[in-house]
Order: sequence, then structure tokens, then C-alpha cells
Amino acid sequence: MAGASEITAMRRAVELAGRGAATASPNPVVGCVVLAPSGETVGEGWHERPGGPHAEVAALRRAGPAARGATAVVTLEPCRHTGRTGPCTTALLEAGVARVVYAVPDPSDQAGGGAAVLAAAGVEVEAGVLRAEAEQVNARWLAAARLGRPHVTWKFAGTLDGRSAAADGSSRWITGPEARADVHRLRAGMDAVVVGVGTVLADDPALTVRGVHPPPARPPLRVVVDSAGRTPSTARVLDAEAPTWVATTAELGSDAAGRVPLAAVVYGLRARGVLAALLEGGPTLAGAFVRAGLVDRVVGYVAPALLGAGAAVLGEAGVASIDGAHRLVLDDVTLLGTDLRLTGSFARRPHQPAHPSGTAGASEEESTCSPG
Amino acid sequence: MAGASEITAMRRAVELAGRGAATASPNPVVGCVVLAPSGETVGEGWHERPGGPHAEVAALRRAGPAARGATAVVTLEPCRHTGRTGPCTTALLEAGVARVVYAVPDPSDQAGGGAAVLAAAGVEVEAGVLRAEAEQVNARWLAAARLGRPHVTWKFAGTLDGRSAAADGSSRWITGPEARADVHRLRAGMDAVVVGVGTVLADDPALTVRGVHPPPARPPLRVVVDSAGRTPSTARVLDAEAPTWVATTAELGSDAAGRVPLAAVVYGLRARGVLAALLEGGPTLAGAFVRAGLVDRVVGYVAPALLGAGAAVLGEAGVASIDGAHRLVLDDVTLLGTDLRLTGSFARRPHQPAHPSGTAGASEEESTCSPG
Ligand SMILES: NC(=O)c1ccc[n+]([C@@H]2O[C@H](COP(=O)([O-])OP(=O)(O)OC[C@H]3O[C@@H](n4cnc5c(N)ncnc54)[C@H](OP(=O)(O)O)[C@@H]3O)[C@@H](O)[C@H]2O)c1
Ligand SMILES: NC(=O)c1ccc[n+]([C@@H]2O[C@H](COP(=O)([O-])OP(=O)(O)OC[C@H]3O[C@@H](n4cnc5c(N)ncnc54)[C@H](OP(=O)(O)O)[C@@H]3O)[C@@H](O)[C@H]2O)c1
Repeated sequence: MAGASEITAMRRAVELAGRGAATASPNPVVGCVVLAPSGETVGEGWHERPGGPHAEVAALRRAGPAARGATAVVTLEPCRHTGRTGPCTTALLEAGVARVVYAVPDPSDQAGGGAAVLAAAGVEVEAGVLRAEAEQVNARWLAAARLGRPHVTWKFAGTLDGRSAAADGSSRWITGPEARADVHRLRAGMDAVVVGVGTVLADDPALTVRGVHPPPARPPLRVVVDSAGRTPSTARVLDAEAPTWVATTAELGSDAAGRVPLAAVVYGLRARGVLAALLEGGPTLAGAFVRAGLVDRVVGYVAPALLGAGAAVLGEAGVASIDGAHRLVLDDVTLLGTDLRLTGSFARRPHQPAHPSGTAGASEEESTCSPG
Repeated sequence: MAGASEITAMRRAVELAGRGAATASPNPVVGCVVLAPSGETVGEGWHERPGGPHAEVAALRRAGPAARGATAVVTLEPCRHTGRTGPCTTALLEAGVARVVYAVPDPSDQAGGGAAVLAAAGVEVEAGVLRAEAEQVNARWLAAARLGRPHVTWKFAGTLDGRSAAADGSSRWITGPEARADVHRLRAGMDAVVVGVGTVLADDPALTVRGVHPPPARPPLRVVVDSAGRTPSTARVLDAEAPTWVATTAELGSDAAGRVPLAAVVYGLRARGVLAALLEGGPTLAGAFVRAGLVDRVVGYVAPALLGAGAAVLGEAGVASIDGAHRLVLDDVTLLGTDLRLTGSFARRPHQPAHPSGTAGASEEESTCSPG
């Protein structure tokens, strides 16, 4: 059982973890407090940025010799893999820590198992203390770690009758200013924004974050899924406002239909350090993503209007009969000006392998707990 | 200014009016209280059913000679037209009433103006007392009187991406049992349920009210809009469970496209005593109704599911460009099981003539305040 001082220390560790929120990505946010047997805090640390010291290492450094016989209280199961800085399990053992209390087990294949390594070396280990709080501060990284790929949100804007444009193709503006501002806030929280080349050719969108204060630390990566590389060199998405990845079959190979394989896109995003991606459409690419089971959450901005004709918000998604409908769980309904925002998520799907063979390999950064 | 005893009497009159709720249709519900100059109640009445006495007449009968010099407190402006029972204004004048207090002016062209008739005859008239309460108890009739036709609610059931069926046509069940039960409650409150012949041919629906307790006093009229009379004689909609009107071009003439003119349908409904109608689709007929400006309210049952293909909830509705979208005001959002019910209404449209020429003539019953 974790003692009262350990619970207090974990609350502090969660707070410390949160300090890395804007900078640690694509690594997890982690906080660590080292307690002397007396219950006194002798060291604190958090993971600030990839390449910087892990939370445990930073806290142990502060503690110095006082770490011997001490308890390390840490928000995430210590990693056992060798990254740029060596495993945290080794650092904890070398410092002579007697007990490790952590909140959340590490779900990533490569880094998980640190608890077992510590226990085998004779360290007392306790898991699950303040787990909910620690999950919350690290939600983005945990979601991606559990999926083995970035968490994908599909966003659409449409009418009550499911149209994203009128018969003549016009769509400005289906939704009002409050909903459009909310899209920018949604983008600001993402590592990447993804569209198909059809949207680039039709709308020439900038896909930047505008009107959000403070602006995101790093602008989201702009991604165009573009089999044949048809994105014009003059497209706004290629301007200097943010980095852009044009994902082509030349780079990623072709699926059976001669198009960019979407699994390769999501693993390619992962390799670029993307934990959370916003799929902004259009209907063709969104349908293909939904069909492939690569959408985790849907955010629909629904205007109380009827069009009766025009492009549908979602294209072919591999459903033949009503029994095959992609069913969501409704998480939230919010009124934004005169529009509604509906948020739903897909029931958990079978785990996807963390390291699929034959797709773009994952770099160090994003597949482990804190490899930096 | 209405005195305290008059306000109390109006509250009572509203209560009396409500007693006709299930039976007065297509007439308005009306309540009347006759007060002696002392403030004592000397007569009460309400309009129970078409053909029965008007509220004023019933109350004056009870009051007898005590009506002379009395005040009549009535929920709706007394009618001045000659129906089966003669105008209420005449009855009030003959009884020697000195003052008339009413809540809601009569919006119908034919019956309105009773207040002016009374005032010209030297009766003191006051309007607007407890108007909100009196509007509410008589909402259905007032809505139809103001529109000059039945109030039309379009109901649809669809997915988040606006589909009412999957690619193979299957649609059972898009929404869950709670939403489907709610449709029956919605039907139970209507005088008519309207579909196109396409829905009859595809689904053979019964269009009856099921599972609602107590069942409606009168089952809603079932209406099939069917230009060429293609409704099979074996269709469930033609069974003995409820009355049915198959509206054909043979009866109502043809529009430019050779189809049943929808204005003729709504005036035909009115002639059949319908104050409130539920349009249940399918997409073709719903689009035509929306295009014609004949939908007042939309109730959408939206399942949190995606289909990506299949029939749209709404067909061609005359919108070419986004500026022409039919915009609604969102009135209500309710969770029903796992589905959402969205209710919206159209901003007030220009008044429609009460008696269009060249369409089915309106009978006495529904175009006047209380012609019975
Ligand atoms: N209302 C909204 O929320 C919203 C959002 C975005 C866009 N839109 C509208 O959507 C319209 C464009 O729609 P769209 O469907 O043509 O564009 P899209 O979905 O953005 O792009 C589709 C294109 O993506 C490419 N692609 C590459 N690999 C693919 C794969 N594996 N699966 C599917 N597609 C793949 C294909 O072209 P290649 O094979 O040539 O690469 C395909 O034609 C525009 O009018 C825009 O205004 C609306
Ligand atoms: N999800 C839902 O809420 C819902 C509700 C109802 C139906 N549905 C589905 O809708 C499908 C049927 O759709 P639908 O569009 O074919 O059927 P529909 O809208 O019920 O019927 C359309 C037909 O109505 C007739 N009509 C007569 N006068 C008209 C006018 N002025 N304007 C338009 N139509 C007129 C036309 O046939 P004629 O010219 O031959 O008379 C037309 O083809 C079915 O699969 C059903 O399951 C879904």
C-alpha cells in the first residue's frame, strides 16, 4: 500500500509531468519525486523535451547520494530499453533506490516491462497510484502508444442532411464563425492535419492554425495524401507557414487500387513524431480512412440547414448493409453559435501491431516511453 | 385594465379550454367564464367538439338572465361569422353582455374581427389578458390558422453522415428502440402522417400509432402522395387500422412535372380537418416539400453511425448554391438511448393565403375560430 506521503508525492509528480505538456511530444510527459525513508522529498524531475534527461534521471541527479534506500514516485512505469540515455531501470538500480511507486503501466511493446526488471533486481514495486490523474496528463501519448499509431480524429463540417457542399460545389460558409474558430482550436492541439489531394485541388486550403492564442508551440505538420504528386507547387499548403509532407506512392508504394496505402501514411506520421492527427477530409479520403479502421474519433460540425443535393460529408467507407454500419459512441454534444458540434468515438478496435512489417519504420522518438 | 377577478376567471377559462384538447380538433379549444358585475361567476363553458356549442354560447346558457350587464372572459376572440350556430358576437350582444375580455386575437381571415363588431355595438372590449397561457393551450389550432394550412413537421431517421439507408437499401434499424418509440409518440400527436408512394412501394409501412398509451382519440389520417395511383391494393397503409387518403393527380390535378401539386395536398389535408401533419418521407417527397416551403419544423433522429453510401435523408430541394441553403433554427437536442433527436424550425415564412383559388376548398370546420 502506498503511504500518504507517497500519494502526496504522486500528486506532485503529476504536476511536474504537466510542465512538459507543450515540449515533451512525441515523448510522454513524466514526473518523478524521490522520497527519503523519512518521507522527505530529496529530488524532483520531469521530462522536458526529447533528448533531455528522463524524469527519473533528473530527479535522481537532484537527490544525489540521498537516493540510496529511497522511494522513487513516478507517473509512468520506468522504461527498460536503451535509448539515447540508457534505460531508467538501470539508473534507478545504480542509484540504489529501494522502492518504486508508479501510476500508469507503459503500454508500448518496446519499453514496457520496466517494473518486472526492477522487481527481479529486488526493488519493491507498486503500480496504479493516482492512475487516473496520471493517465489524464499523459493522454495523448498513451492513446498513441496503445494504438501503436497516431490517434486520428476525423473532422467534418456539414448540414443536417449530411452535405458538405451545395450542388454547385460552394461550401463557404456552411457553419458559422464559432464553429470555424473551434476547428482552429482543434487543429492547434494536433501534431498533424491530413487532407487528400482532392481537397487541395478544390479549395487550396492553408491548413494552418489561425486565431488561436497562444499559438501552438509547433505548428501541426500539414499532410497531403497524393498518389501521383498532383499537388501544385503553388499550393498554399506548400508555403513556409508550417512544414508539409506530401505522401505519394513514389515514397510509400501503392495499395491494390494504385493509391497511397493508408497504413503507411499513419506509420509515416508516427515516424515523424505525430501522436495525434486531424483528418480534415474530403469525403473520399475520409471514407478510405474509416473503411481502414484508422479513425478513432469523429468531430462533426453540423449546421441546422438543409441542402438536398451536393457532396456528402463521407464517401465510400466499405459498408454494404446496415449491419455493417460504422457505429460510434456519442461522447459530447455542444452548441457553437447556431451550429452543433457532435463528438463520437469508435468502440475499441483490436490492437494494431506496433511495428508492422513492410511499412515505414518507426523512429526512436515515438514508440517508447521516454527514449530521449 | 383587467381586474383581479377577471384574471382569475381567465385562468379558469384556459383550464376549461383544455378540456376540449382531445375532441375539439379541427376547431380551436376555447373556454369562457361569465362574471356578474359583483365579480361572481354566473356561467362557464368550453367548446367540446365540432358541431357542439361554442364556449361563449355554453357559458351564456348557464348564466341565463344573469348575463345581462355581465363580463364574458374568453380565451379566444369571439367569432363574428355565421357557421352552423351563428356568430358568437351575436350571442354575446343578445345576452346583453356589457364587457368582453379575451386573451388571443383570432388570426383567421374569415372569423377575425369579432372584437370590432362588439366594440361597434357599444360593448367594452379588452384583449391580451393571459395571452401566453391561452396561446399555449390552443397552439395547434393557432399554428394552422396563422399558416393558413396545416403545420407540417418533417421527420427523418439517418446517420451522422446523412444516410437513411445503406448501399443495399437496408435501413432496419438505423436508430434504436428509444428513437423508434419516440416516432410513435410524435405520430400520436398528429392529425395526419404523409409519405410518398416510393416509401409505400419500398417498405410497405403501416403508418399506425403503436405502443403509445393511451392511444390517440382518433388515429392519424394516413396519406400517400401517389401521382398515378400506384399504391397496391394489398398495401398495409390501406388496411382497416386507420383512414387513408391516396392523393393522386386524378383527384388534385398535376404540377408542371406531372406530379401531385403539394399545395393541393396541404389544402386537401386542411379540408379534412388536419391541423398538424407529420411528413415521414422518403427523400424525394421530403425534398419537394422543403423546396415548396411547406415544412415548418424538422425532427431528425440521428444515429451516431457512418455509412458512406446509400440513400440520403433528403433529396433534391431546389438549392443550387450554399447561399440558398434552407436554414433552420435549432430548438432542441435530446439524447434518446444512443441516438440524438434534433428539432429545428424554419424562420417565419411569408403568410400564405387562407383560401388559395384553384385548390380543394376548405370546409367550414378548420378555417374559423369555432364555427361548429
Ligand atoms: N466539409 C468538410 O469538412 C470538408 C473537408 C475537406 C474537404 N471538403 C470538400 O471535399 C472536396 C474534395 O473531396 P475529395 O473527396 O475529392 O478530396 P479528398 O478526399 O481530399 O482527396 C481524395 C483524393 O485523395 C487521394 N488519395 C490518395 N490515396 C488515397 C487512398 N488510399 N484513399 C483515398 N484517397 C486517396 C486520391 O487522389 P490520388 O489517387 O490522385 O492521390 C483521391 O482522389 C472539396 O470540394 C472540399 O471542399 C469538405
Ligand atoms: N429514414 C427515413 O426517415 C425514411 C422515411 C421514409 C422513407 N425512407 C426511405 O425512402 C425510400 C423511398 O424514397 P423515395 O424518395 O423513393 O420515396 P418517397 O419520397 O416516399 O416517394 C416519392 C414519390 O412520391 C411521388 N410524388 C407524387 N407527387 C410528388 C411531388 N409533387 N413531389 C415529389 N414526389 C411526388 C412520386 O412518385 P409518383 O410520381 O409516381 O407519384 C415520387 O417518386 C425507401 O427506401 C424508404 O425506406 C426513409
